[in-house]
Amino acid sequence: MTDTVTSLSRRHLLAGTTGALAAAGMATWTGSALGQEKPLPSYASWKDKDSLIIHSPNTMETRRGDLGTSVITASDRLYVRNNLSPPDASIVSDPDAWEIAVEGVKNPRTVSVGDLKTMGIGTVAMVLQCSGNGRGFFPSKPSGTKWTVGAAGCVIWSGAPVSAVAKALGGVADGMPYMTGTGGEKLPEGIDPKSLVVERSVPVKVLDDALLAWELNGEPIPLAHGGPLRLIVPGYQGVNNIKYIKKLAFTAKETDARIMTHDYRMTPPGEKPDPSQPPVLEMSVKSWINSPIPKDKTAAGKVPIVGVAFGGTHAVKRIEVSTDGGKTWQDARFFGPDLGKFAWRDFVLEADLPAGEHKLASRATDDAGNVQPEMRVENASGYNNTSWADHAVTVNVA
Amino acid sequence: MTDTVTSLSRRHLLAGTTGALAAAGMATWTGSALGQEKPLPSYASWKDKDSLIIHSPNTMETRRGDLGTSVITASDRLYVRNNLSPPDASIVSDPDAWEIAVEGVKNPRTVSVGDLKTMGIGTVAMVLQCSGNGRGFFPSKPSGTKWTVGAAGCVIWSGAPVSAVAKALGGVADGMPYMTGTGGEKLPEGIDPKSLVVERSVPVKVLDDALLAWELNGEPIPLAHGGPLRLIVPGYQGVNNIKYIKKLAFTAKETDARIMTHDYRMTPPGEKPDPSQPPVLEMSVKSWINSPIPKDKTAAGKVPIVGVAFGGTHAVKRIEVSTDGGKTWQDARFFGPDLGKFAWRDFVLEADLPAGEHKLASRATDDAGNVQPEMRVENASGYNNTSWADHAVTVNVA
Repeated sequence: MTDTVTSLSRRHLLAGTTGALAAAGMATWTGSALGQEKPLPSYASWKDKDSLIIHSPNTMETRRGDLGTSVITASDRLYVRNNLSPPDASIVSDPDAWEIAVEGVKNPRTVSVGDLKTMGIGTVAMVLQCSGNGRGFFPSKPSGTKWTVGAAGCVIWSGAPVSAVAKALGGVADGMPYMTGTGGEKLPEGIDPKSLVVERSVPVKVLDDALLAWELNGEPIPLAHGGPLRLIVPGYQGVNNIKYIKKLAFTAKETDARIMTHDYRMTPPGEKPDPSQPPVLEMSVKSWINSPIPKDKTAAGKVPIVGVAFGGTHAVKRIEVSTDGGKTWQDARFFGPDLGKFAWRDFVLEADLPAGEHKLASRATDDAGNVQPEMRVENASGYNNTSWADHAVTVNVA
Repeated sequence: MTDTVTSLSRRHLLAGTTGALAAAGMATWTGSALGQEKPLPSYASWKDKDSLIIHSPNTMETRRGDLGTSVITASDRLYVRNNLSPPDASIVSDPDAWEIAVEGVKNPRTVSVGDLKTMGIGTVAMVLQCSGNGRGFFPSKPSGTKWTVGAAGCVIWSGAPVSAVAKALGGVADGMPYMTGTGGEKLPEGIDPKSLVVERSVPVKVLDDALLAWELNGEPIPLAHGGPLRLIVPGYQGVNNIKYIKKLAFTAKETDARIMTHDYRMTPPGEKPDPSQPPVLEMSVKSWINSPIPKDKTAAGKVPIVGVAFGGTHAVKRIEVSTDGGKTWQDARFFGPDLGKFAWRDFVLEADLPAGEHKLASRATDDAGNVQPEMRVENASGYNNTSWADHAVTVNVA
């Protein structure tokens, strides 16, 4: 979603800092308001354009029918959502040379990706999802990108476990309940860096699962997805997975960067963002149907109803499908490999659908017993929409 | 490997059929003998050239250091080995229209990929490996591509379970112990089709695992990998996974196509291929190290020794690593998600290596207790090299 920078743009335009924003490549953001078909930006020119809805140069989502049934999402179909324009592409030409400052450990120092590769290795499959995924279903039309289902993918990251990195540097210093990551985007001169910097704090308990990753789906992480090095916090909303990470600090307090204090907060409708409101951190149980969808030609008879389900920080345990808009439900089944609790699972209900209109919905339950809710939690910015009713599709069967 | 067609080329050149072979695009095969750096063929132009060794227009392997640690192999790094040149690219433009004849069932008929999509859905992660992978390590220098380790990848396929397709067509007919798949490559006129057709028989017991797949790693299968439809036989050597499949038959006998009767047989050294020799079917337990390898600059100290291990039709259960050429072994550990028994697993031993030369080897054991052998099974065509000694690497640590 483009809240931060477009609202800042408006504010700073009034203050006469247009030049500074344009220099940082952010003037392009306002293009998202035009509504016409847009080209892929150069840093994402390798993407499969036909599978993407290009909202703006920094926001692209996978089309609903194009998420596949292979558990993992191919990198060239994976959504892109950059809070700021990416750094120059030269940073991915020699990934091992990228450096990151590690602070809040007993022996803080700057390490290169090459150094990290000697500290340990881990691999995790996980759902990467923008917290604004599903915003497009909010009737209140919050500002920001109108993502439907495709600001999410299930991908595999490989890199150094943060726990191994902390251990190699003497361990986490005492009294540090947060892990704070800072992105390496170039910030414009003349604007308070705290108003723009991508810097997020998550509870230090994520240490056991988090990675400093250099690989995505078997290849060096492309610039579009945060290469050469990205902080991966499995189970947490996308914004917490800091791209081009240049500093990782264990801290006594949450960062006071605006993206933490005011953005990505569950702000009640009609209110202003405020640091007292709950931050967007863990994802919660969610599912949706990818086939059939309204654009498909669906013939009466046996119709596999297929989708994805995940539990955020809990494994997904059960999936139900309704063909009558949620009046009645049937258990569907998961299929394909189970890539672990942070991954999604493909599901299918082999339904028998007569000709006519059918409202198809899915409802997931995680292994802690949390059930995907019927209704979204209303909030000013349109975050965390897990409503099964919003994600239902009406299909006409011929 | 290029045995079939190059040997046929030689034979048929003498018989004056050069024109027919050239018309089928097979003259290009002999380019593999030249040894110079070659371009990607047009059907594989989307591949990541830097990660591949291009042996010929129909044989490309992934470089040893480029297999990653994400469990899955990215499609653009996955090896290519075509027994014949692929059909025209137009066949992947409308995948759902591709038709396959299904025979040896109670109600045989031709079905389209669109039809298959209503019959059922399944997804499997598996090692795809050319049976000639590791041929390059045979001192006897068998003819065919000198693959080292990179004619293998771990990928995810999605499609219709063959069991569901058979069931939809009334079930497998009685007395059919084989499942025979036929590829859709165009064959040249004037040559006995049986001498060239890619048609292979596998035991019908594979029915429970096999797929008629239309998706690879989350995307429609590209032409280079057998799209629009490929027969997937998990745990079986690559050649059994028929590309562009146009016929699937349950049969009373093995096919008499030459690729079954004479090629891909474990022919004793110095003997001629013969249908009485064991065919190349199931893969067996194997592993190798991908990092460090000789081209890496490795510094003394903590060195993660990383590789992949798999068991063919059995899950891999144990992995050991030696840093002294196999004199002593230490248990290494698997990391990352377990994608099921047909997939490989990444492993690591966090070794402490002093400066000097070290011979690194890995040895896998599957859950049936089969241990990766020290020595290859000698055979005329260089198939099925699982020798841990052949796959060892000598690295210089500075």
